[in-house]
Amino acid sequence: MLPPLTVDLNCDMGESFGAWNMGQDEAILPFVTSANIACGFHAGDPAVMKRTVRAALRHGVAIGAHPGLPDLAGFGRRNLDISAEEAFDMTVYQLGALAAVARAEGGHLHHLKPHGALYNMAATNAALAEAIAEAVYRVQPELTLYGLAGSALTKAGEKLGLRTAHEVFADRTYQADGTLTPRRQPDALIADADTAIAQVLRMVQAGLVRAQQGHDVAIRADTVCIHGDGAHALEFAQRLSAALRDAGVTLQAGQTAPTA
Amino acid sequence: MLPPLTVDLNCDMGESFGAWNMGQDEAILPFVTSANIACGFHAGDPAVMKRTVRAALRHGVAIGAHPGLPDLAGFGRRNLDISAEEAFDMTVYQLGALAAVARAEGGHLHHLKPHGALYNMAATNAALAEAIAEAVYRVQPELTLYGLAGSALTKAGEKLGLRTAHEVFADRTYQADGTLTPRRQPDALIADADTAIAQVLRMVQAGLVRAQQGHDVAIRADTVCIHGDGAHALEFAQRLSAALRDAGVTLQAGQTAPTA
Amino acid sequence: MLPPLTVDLNCDMGESFGAWNMGQDEAILPFVTSANIACGFHAGDPAVMKRTVRAALRHGVAIGAHPGLPDLAGFGRRNLDISAEEAFDMTVYQLGALAAVARAEGGHLHHLKPHGALYNMAATNAALAEAIAEAVYRVQPELTLYGLAGSALTKAGEKLGLRTAHEVFADRTYQADGTLTPRRQPDALIADADTAIAQVLRMVQAGLVRAQQGHDVAIRADTVCIHGDGAHALEFAQRLSAALRDAGVTLQAGQTAPTA
Amino acid sequence: MLPPLTVDLNCDMGESFGAWNMGQDEAILPFVTSANIACGFHAGDPAVMKRTVRAALRHGVAIGAHPGLPDLAGFGRRNLDISAEEAFDMTVYQLGALAAVARAEGGHLHHLKPHGALYNMAATNAALAEAIAEAVYRVQPELTLYGLAGSALTKAGEKLGLRTAHEVFADRTYQADGTLTPRRQPDALIADADTAIAQVLRMVQAGLVRAQQGHDVAIRADTVCIHGDGAHALEFAQRLSAALRDAGVTLQAGQTAPTA
Repeated sequence: MLPPLTVDLNCDMGESFGAWNMGQDEAILPFVTSANIACGFHAGDPAVMKRTVRAALRHGVAIGAHPGLPDLAGFGRRNLDISAEEAFDMTVYQLGALAAVARAEGGHLHHLKPHGALYNMAATNAALAEAIAEAVYRVQPELTLYGLAGSALTKAGEKLGLRTAHEVFADRTYQADGTLTPRRQPDALIADADTAIAQVLRMVQAGLVRAQQGHDVAIRADTVCIHGDGAHALEFAQRLSAALRDAGVTLQAGQTAPTA
Repeated sequence: MLPPLTVDLNCDMGESFGAWNMGQDEAILPFVTSANIACGFHAGDPAVMKRTVRAALRHGVAIGAHPGLPDLAGFGRRNLDISAEEAFDMTVYQLGALAAVARAEGGHLHHLKPHGALYNMAATNAALAEAIAEAVYRVQPELTLYGLAGSALTKAGEKLGLRTAHEVFADRTYQADGTLTPRRQPDALIADADTAIAQVLRMVQAGLVRAQQGHDVAIRADTVCIHGDGAHALEFAQRLSAALRDAGVTLQAGQTAPTA
Repeated sequence: MLPPLTVDLNCDMGESFGAWNMGQDEAILPFVTSANIACGFHAGDPAVMKRTVRAALRHGVAIGAHPGLPDLAGFGRRNLDISAEEAFDMTVYQLGALAAVARAEGGHLHHLKPHGALYNMAATNAALAEAIAEAVYRVQPELTLYGLAGSALTKAGEKLGLRTAHEVFADRTYQADGTLTPRRQPDALIADADTAIAQVLRMVQAGLVRAQQGHDVAIRADTVCIHGDGAHALEFAQRLSAALRDAGVTLQAGQTAPTA
Repeated sequence: MLPPLTVDLNCDMGESFGAWNMGQDEAILPFVTSANIACGFHAGDPAVMKRTVRAALRHGVAIGAHPGLPDLAGFGRRNLDISAEEAFDMTVYQLGALAAVARAEGGHLHHLKPHGALYNMAATNAALAEAIAEAVYRVQPELTLYGLAGSALTKAGEKLGLRTAHEVFADRTYQADGTLTPRRQPDALIADADTAIAQVLRMVQAGLVRAQQGHDVAIRADTVCIHGDGAHALEFAQRLSAALRDAGVTLQAGQTAPTA
């Protein structure tokens, strides 16, 4: 008998800043198993981080650092031409900041997932990917490194012996080489919720995704990215989590031993 | 026979930012025993922090977090009307960030000393002082909390059972109640190096300082603040450290066990 | 025959930042006659400023600079111990930035009103008030300076010969000396909309407000501050504007000739 | 008889920030004819801007806005993937801020030159270049737009009818197509001062530069970029300015009528 299938549902959280609110973290938390918490560079501030860590602990959701580029005005979504060393430095800094917030609240970190442009650049740029993985390895090697499935980032983590989580997207289409269809293409997004859910089920159960070119591609789906904002985000999170459970899939973040 | 006298010489470091340099950390390091490293809010950035941690490790100087107010343009020197909770949050954040930088370089933190206006406010405002002490206690209770000798900050640390270091100043005069003469008063500063060195020796050896009102006041001198910038900073650091050694005083940061 | 009564209804706007939205500027604009637009220090960014200027121009609402303290994380609401010269410098800078945005859109500035803690400090601190007034005087002396009615700020403007607008609050109670009841007192706020509207009408029509101590105090009401956020803000703005019009009061920002 | 040759010597200035100093503006000012003053995004702050404007006015040096990317930590030197609209918005904002500072000091702007990565991106990216030129055109069309000689930026300015200044570099080598040799190439820089001065003289007098490929290329040299930092910057500025004067070249910024 095969072991039961498991998958993690992760969501970006703690993306408010000062007087500005974003997202609906409290509402989404019951339907996810891990939270990627912004660390103050692209969003989040020390107070928001504390509030978000507390909420995650209350819901038993695994806490991850979600470091971003130092670009508050651009929400970390604009590529910035940083060196690998700068990527290392800013990852170490943000990881440490959130780790301390978690520790002060009696929790600990479970993973790290870069945000926005840093995530995208690290998916294809091996030097940046290795710098980010190295930062995790040097500070908290017990953490799981989340990255785009099959990307330079997961490869860099694996090279260092880090636990990695290959991330897939419910609402994005895939290309024949297993990469995401670029957003600028008209067929990049899956608008229909049923189609999106079916895609996730197939990725989790069969390890396959139907590429836009028409044939199946192998994909590793350790964790699924759930969006936290938008009108239908909450409803979709509920439906996806129910569909996975109905299919006998266990929802959980990969196990990591707490730091002593 | 009495145990040998010991004192710590501390200096603010890592206060460069991006393309801007400040201080002469490398030159001062041989003459101090602990370094308070800026954490990115009033000065410092992840790259500067790493560089400074490395230099401190190379010189065997104890590493401390030097959290400040979020006021880069004002270098953390302008009072900002923050709540105690905000003081807690920003201390946790900055402490964690530097701890991770130190860990990535194979080092660990020894102490925490607030910077500038945060230090001054915490010297007299008990709520802020307790929040900062609580932050240390919750994140790394093995750290030593540096604060103005006899201030609200050292009191707050002691109340929580933290190791504290009472800090004295070589170049500042004192009042009958043991507080510093406010900087706006004409007699606040000691310009003459010999007088400053004699003041330190007396504080360390006898636990006394001559107040501006003419009589002696008891003072606890665990650590002496050395300035890192200014034309004569380096020369003064050399002379003070030599004078203390000549008087049989051992220069060392208080012992703290490294984190596991 | 007396000239018709006029009053200005002003509202803080453009307080979104990057990916974060705040307020409901478009909905409020039809009910106000002047907009105080954040200039990037406490809120707002160049894109938000442009969007807000465009909306104000579309609605024929007078545009004002709304400079704040450099404290994005605190939304400019925390007192910062700045010098008068720093207040001058930051006012000049922010005023110029918004003036250029307005000019690029074919508009021009009508007034300047400091934000949050800068407004409050300038209401009582004569040196800060004079620095802000001087900044307006040196850059665009044709602007109207908005300040708390009877405050150090309006006095400073009048001393320099600036046009000033004395600002009153619909939802705040007043003290016997004409100052606002501090927010920390339980009777600081007027929760009932009818009472608030009646207070405004009396201030505009009779130049009087009933102090918490029970007697009337003279007050000059050139402009009324309307809040832009909160569940009932829009409804209150509608009701107040209707009540004033019904009472024969003309709603308009004080006339200022456009810059050549 | 030909009109006398003229050229402008420009230098980036006002690049200090808060407590951090950079450059040696006062020492360089006697040897240049125009100053590009940082506007707070990559360097500079309102106080530094005022100080620098005052110094430029004292030396009779033309004042230019030097807008940069919002990247203080990277000094505006890292490419950031901004849209053309963002480039427009940030140019308008920074231009207006410096214009107000100048006005408050009794001066006015003469030109605008983008900084660092913004300058480089605008040299080749037509959409960014047009956005920057449009910002100048909409806010102060009487300004001169400085850009790399023969670049997309000067082209964009000329298309809008702006006065432009084609900028050349003393210490950089050129390619056969008139572009700068990329910095990553070993022959990008001219280390020898005599060679650099001779290159400038030839560009100014003959409109030619010897490309690395060995033949002459036509180049328009309205303004020469002088570096303000570095050990030999001051000496080089002195020598270049003397060499140009000795050759009968008039040093002056292009004439622009002051704004009314």
